[in-house]
Amino acid sequence: MSKINKIAVFTSGGDAPGMNACIRAVVRTGIHFGCEMVGIKQGYQGMIDENFIPMNRHSVSNIMQLGGTILKTARCLEFRTEEGMEKAYQNLKKQGIQALVAIGGDGTFTGAERFSNKYDIPVVCVPGTIDNDLYGSDFTLGFDTATNTVIEAIDKIRDTAESHDRLFFIEVMGRDAGCIALRAGIAGGAEAIMLPEKDTAIEDLISTLEHGAANLKSSSIVIVAEGDKNGGAYNVAKRVKEKFDYYDTKVTILGHLQRGGSPSSFDRILGSRMGFAAVKALLAGQTRKMVGLHGNNIALTDLREALSGHEFKLEDDLMEMSSILA
Amino acid sequence: MSKINKIAVFTSGGDAPGMNACIRAVVRTGIHFGCEMVGIKQGYQGMIDENFIPMNRHSVSNIMQLGGTILKTARCLEFRTEEGMEKAYQNLKKQGIQALVAIGGDGTFTGAERFSNKYDIPVVCVPGTIDNDLYGSDFTLGFDTATNTVIEAIDKIRDTAESHDRLFFIEVMGRDAGCIALRAGIAGGAEAIMLPEKDTAIEDLISTLEHGAANLKSSSIVIVAEGDKNGGAYNVAKRVKEKFDYYDTKVTILGHLQRGGSPSSFDRILGSRMGFAAVKALLAGQTRKMVGLHGNNIALTDLREALSGHEFKLEDDLMEMSSILA
Amino acid sequence: MSKINKIAVFTSGGDAPGMNACIRAVVRTGIHFGCEMVGIKQGYQGMIDENFIPMNRHSVSNIMQLGGTILKTARCLEFRTEEGMEKAYQNLKKQGIQALVAIGGDGTFTGAERFSNKYDIPVVCVPGTIDNDLYGSDFTLGFDTATNTVIEAIDKIRDTAESHDRLFFIEVMGRDAGCIALRAGIAGGAEAIMLPEKDTAIEDLISTLEHGAANLKSSSIVIVAEGDKNGGAYNVAKRVKEKFDYYDTKVTILGHLQRGGSPSSFDRILGSRMGFAAVKALLAGQTRKMVGLHGNNIALTDLREALSGHEFKLEDDLMEMSSILA
Amino acid sequence: MSKINKIAVFTSGGDAPGMNACIRAVVRTGIHFGCEMVGIKQGYQGMIDENFIPMNRHSVSNIMQLGGTILKTARCLEFRTEEGMEKAYQNLKKQGIQALVAIGGDGTFTGAERFSNKYDIPVVCVPGTIDNDLYGSDFTLGFDTATNTVIEAIDKIRDTAESHDRLFFIEVMGRDAGCIALRAGIAGGAEAIMLPEKDTAIEDLISTLEHGAANLKSSSIVIVAEGDKNGGAYNVAKRVKEKFDYYDTKVTILGHLQRGGSPSSFDRILGSRMGFAAVKALLAGQTRKMVGLHGNNIALTDLREALSGHEFKLEDDLMEMSSILA
Repeated sequence: MSKINKIAVFTSGGDAPGMNACIRAVVRTGIHFGCEMVGIKQGYQGMIDENFIPMNRHSVSNIMQLGGTILKTARCLEFRTEEGMEKAYQNLKKQGIQALVAIGGDGTFTGAERFSNKYDIPVVCVPGTIDNDLYGSDFTLGFDTATNTVIEAIDKIRDTAESHDRLFFIEVMGRDAGCIALRAGIAGGAEAIMLPEKDTAIEDLISTLEHGAANLKSSSIVIVAEGDKNGGAYNVAKRVKEKFDYYDTKVTILGHLQRGGSPSSFDRILGSRMGFAAVKALLAGQTRKMVGLHGNNIALTDLREALSGHEFKLEDDLMEMSSILA
Repeated sequence: MSKINKIAVFTSGGDAPGMNACIRAVVRTGIHFGCEMVGIKQGYQGMIDENFIPMNRHSVSNIMQLGGTILKTARCLEFRTEEGMEKAYQNLKKQGIQALVAIGGDGTFTGAERFSNKYDIPVVCVPGTIDNDLYGSDFTLGFDTATNTVIEAIDKIRDTAESHDRLFFIEVMGRDAGCIALRAGIAGGAEAIMLPEKDTAIEDLISTLEHGAANLKSSSIVIVAEGDKNGGAYNVAKRVKEKFDYYDTKVTILGHLQRGGSPSSFDRILGSRMGFAAVKALLAGQTRKMVGLHGNNIALTDLREALSGHEFKLEDDLMEMSSILA
Repeated sequence: MSKINKIAVFTSGGDAPGMNACIRAVVRTGIHFGCEMVGIKQGYQGMIDENFIPMNRHSVSNIMQLGGTILKTARCLEFRTEEGMEKAYQNLKKQGIQALVAIGGDGTFTGAERFSNKYDIPVVCVPGTIDNDLYGSDFTLGFDTATNTVIEAIDKIRDTAESHDRLFFIEVMGRDAGCIALRAGIAGGAEAIMLPEKDTAIEDLISTLEHGAANLKSSSIVIVAEGDKNGGAYNVAKRVKEKFDYYDTKVTILGHLQRGGSPSSFDRILGSRMGFAAVKALLAGQTRKMVGLHGNNIALTDLREALSGHEFKLEDDLMEMSSILA
Repeated sequence: MSKINKIAVFTSGGDAPGMNACIRAVVRTGIHFGCEMVGIKQGYQGMIDENFIPMNRHSVSNIMQLGGTILKTARCLEFRTEEGMEKAYQNLKKQGIQALVAIGGDGTFTGAERFSNKYDIPVVCVPGTIDNDLYGSDFTLGFDTATNTVIEAIDKIRDTAESHDRLFFIEVMGRDAGCIALRAGIAGGAEAIMLPEKDTAIEDLISTLEHGAANLKSSSIVIVAEGDKNGGAYNVAKRVKEKFDYYDTKVTILGHLQRGGSPSSFDRILGSRMGFAAVKALLAGQTRKMVGLHGNNIALTDLREALSGHEFKLEDDLMEMSSILA
């Protein structure tokens, strides 16, 4: 394979705090190693629409502390078609782009894997999603910031819950993965946590809350992942209320609040390391890899393996602790 | 009137950040001037239930930075009856309590005014409510913190809105008063603000948004007070979406998040000044007054006047600015 | 006077949070009323160096939440000379700039007053300084945010002070004015506050601290304004330590941390209102005025009056409270 | 070994955010497994002074979000003597305390190792220190929060640095270990980082800054660990200033600000996991171990090994990135 001289970077799927730190690292690392760097706006859509912008060191100045992604992101149905892919490829070729860094979640990776296979263009992926639901990295980019955002919200709601002897149901992101719910629930001292990975019978939840009330807890907070099988916080609250009215009951849906905000130190470092490693991997001849955090090191995983359905598992001790410490 | 030697303080209605600063000031000022101080838990309910606690300087140590109220708060239907009031009065008498500081909103004040009139017990009220909807004070306790909480949320949501070219509808507190919506909307740079005080036709909102889209705004944020006449953020979003689908549309309801959090400097100072002034007013023989902020001074208003329906008005320049600056 | 069609805005002196909100309001209000708008970079220096940039609505998009000033600021000795002023004037004339909005402190105002007098160019000033030391406005732009920054620091230091039974001396900004020290001291629950406006004998401070220790306070925090006559926090700490070693003693100098940060809601609103009012005042034919907050209204003061040495006074009740509540 | 029925927990050395989460986990886990739990105030000093308090589930309610340590901490010279240790042991025996959880840094561990060896009392240690300088755990408790605190400060200082074209030297904690400096420097986008682990010649620093100035950087931030061999931020600033005066130069010493603050989600989870694991280890018959984070799992290390001088190493990729990304 000939030397890579021109690399493009893009973000795709849901935005996540830390993406800008990663873009900055990709651009500056590439330039450091002599490459020309390009940003693609709005992910795969931008490849098709020729939304390319040249990036130099200044293009990524003073962006590390910003939430979201300066390259924007979008979902793109057209890229799933043969024609869309072909158009994207011709546009990249026209630009002289020889390799890609893709930042996003599993949808992004699936597209990258197919595209790279078909057109033999090297691609390295960075797991950027607040959901922390990818195999091959202890943590995904944005998860730490999102969890901090959730516990700040829980801390605030605890103030008012305590003042009124209230029961709060707080719905957090996580359609398939309960990582945010589990960690934020423990870190926020929630009385109960409802996860997509685990069936919680409403009766069991009520008995937990009754136990707390009997122990004179003056307020209770229940964290509900949006993918919980009882149908979200409103439904859980309604069903609990029918049988247990010791407390005044309220519901809060945190929603997109969880995506934004200035990234935490952890996510800025993680994004920087991953972007740095992604470019180094491309220059070392790697392709179809995902960079990931393993312990305190960055390592590569085959994209196919990352995507092949290894189930992401919640940590056993966290699961055990969640009821013992509550 | 004989000298006051024993004063009780309580919080009632919705909790608000800064209430603890006020309780601390009431207790320490009272002690400084030689009074015995009592806290009543859960407002009027606590009077009826004899939920009294003696307060010394240490009782209020290290509470200024806490959201909520250490004395808790509750709504109390029983106090609206003659029997409830009588019971409360007998309990206060038994305790030797000679005067009251009541911290809360207009429901709290109405109760205080009736009670003080009937039993000739001096009472001074402190306007503690995040809604800023009381006559006789430029700002109510908790409003500044709540507004800061809302703009932090808007800033975060702006990150993700910008990354995705999205239109967000954010619902904020304010059933009758649009103060939070108006100020947070301006401070958060919202493209439009929907207030209870003002009819906004959906057509006008859409034309504002179309105008922004034509000017290449890559995202838009609309703040909706819960008391807006179109029926809240979900309804507004639904009706807008039917006719205007330039952006991907999302709704966030901030809810009780807005009540909590460590009070801002402004609210800590305001709570301290109001608590200090309330005790001094009682000791100077005042009764049935509300302390309020007028410019940069604390002044007293008759409770009756504060309650008599002077309509609270949104500032003219803010109303004018809200569309010009957006 | 002929109609004003082109207005320039600049920031000068120390930067303050909220300046960007003000710049945004000036630009958008001017455009709304049909003016051409110009930004001058680095204050008076930029006038001399012809550092002018045209401003449209987009130039001020998404800046409200940023600390500092996008127009930058600098001190400029040359502008104090006749030649410097003449050069600045000729440059403004060349640009067709007919009026100025100057955002800064009293140094900025002095320059603006002289310049406007000499060349008959209308100017309206906005008080932007974290020190809150200007006559003619209840609050200056940036003061609220700076005070919040200081109390967040005090809250953090309190954590560690409490854990170690320590005595902390925290130095805050305020060479001539103790506003930040007084308000942050009260809001942070400081045990003592040292102000430039008031001589505090070290012996009195020690006796206050001894009193606290005797009452089993497990930590103490003393706020020292940098202009305190005992010579700053290090000197105060040293002299206290010689005679009072009940606690382990530590010093923190907050320094420029106090200038930065995303502006509070209060400062965003204040900056917006002041910028809006400044442009309206210019268009109404006003000149050599300062806009200021009076109670909850914006009003104009003659620049000469604002500068004429009316001493800024700390609020009496705050002074009295500062020892009673500690 | 007979079954353990009564466990004591204490914090020692410098306080760190997350210690309260750990205390809470220790107490609740112990109670869950049928033990009686005791808190020792002020570490080893409290053992000698019989400063014991019984702990139940309520003793640790609502403490997870608090910085510092509710059990307080102190340095204790007396415990280093034979007599001090003997006294401590007799006091523990009198209380029926059969095992210890010690939360602190290497001073704490050294004491624990000697004590446990001498009196055959089981002890498990938790690495609680913001410096992240212990062998046997990827991260120590408090490090994540401290790093977040530092980058928030850098972000604020960047605002004012940018507005004034300034060069800032920010001194952060780290007498022997540059972990905070390295991570916060990268996450804050610092132009240069001075570490205890690495000699940086002032000439090299100046040439880095000159390079930045030549590339039109409008401000620069240099992070200096307190243990840097050039003698701290003031000295570095002074020496740079002598030869390079392109920018206006300022110094900020963050100091004890870095110790406080509500713990991050990461530290709350880490503290909870470590406390949980420490109690389980004791109940499983372990002693003289340190719990640590290895990747995403909690594992035990021999105290002797943790203390035996394995040098803690800064991550290679972070070292390499620190200059490439700046």
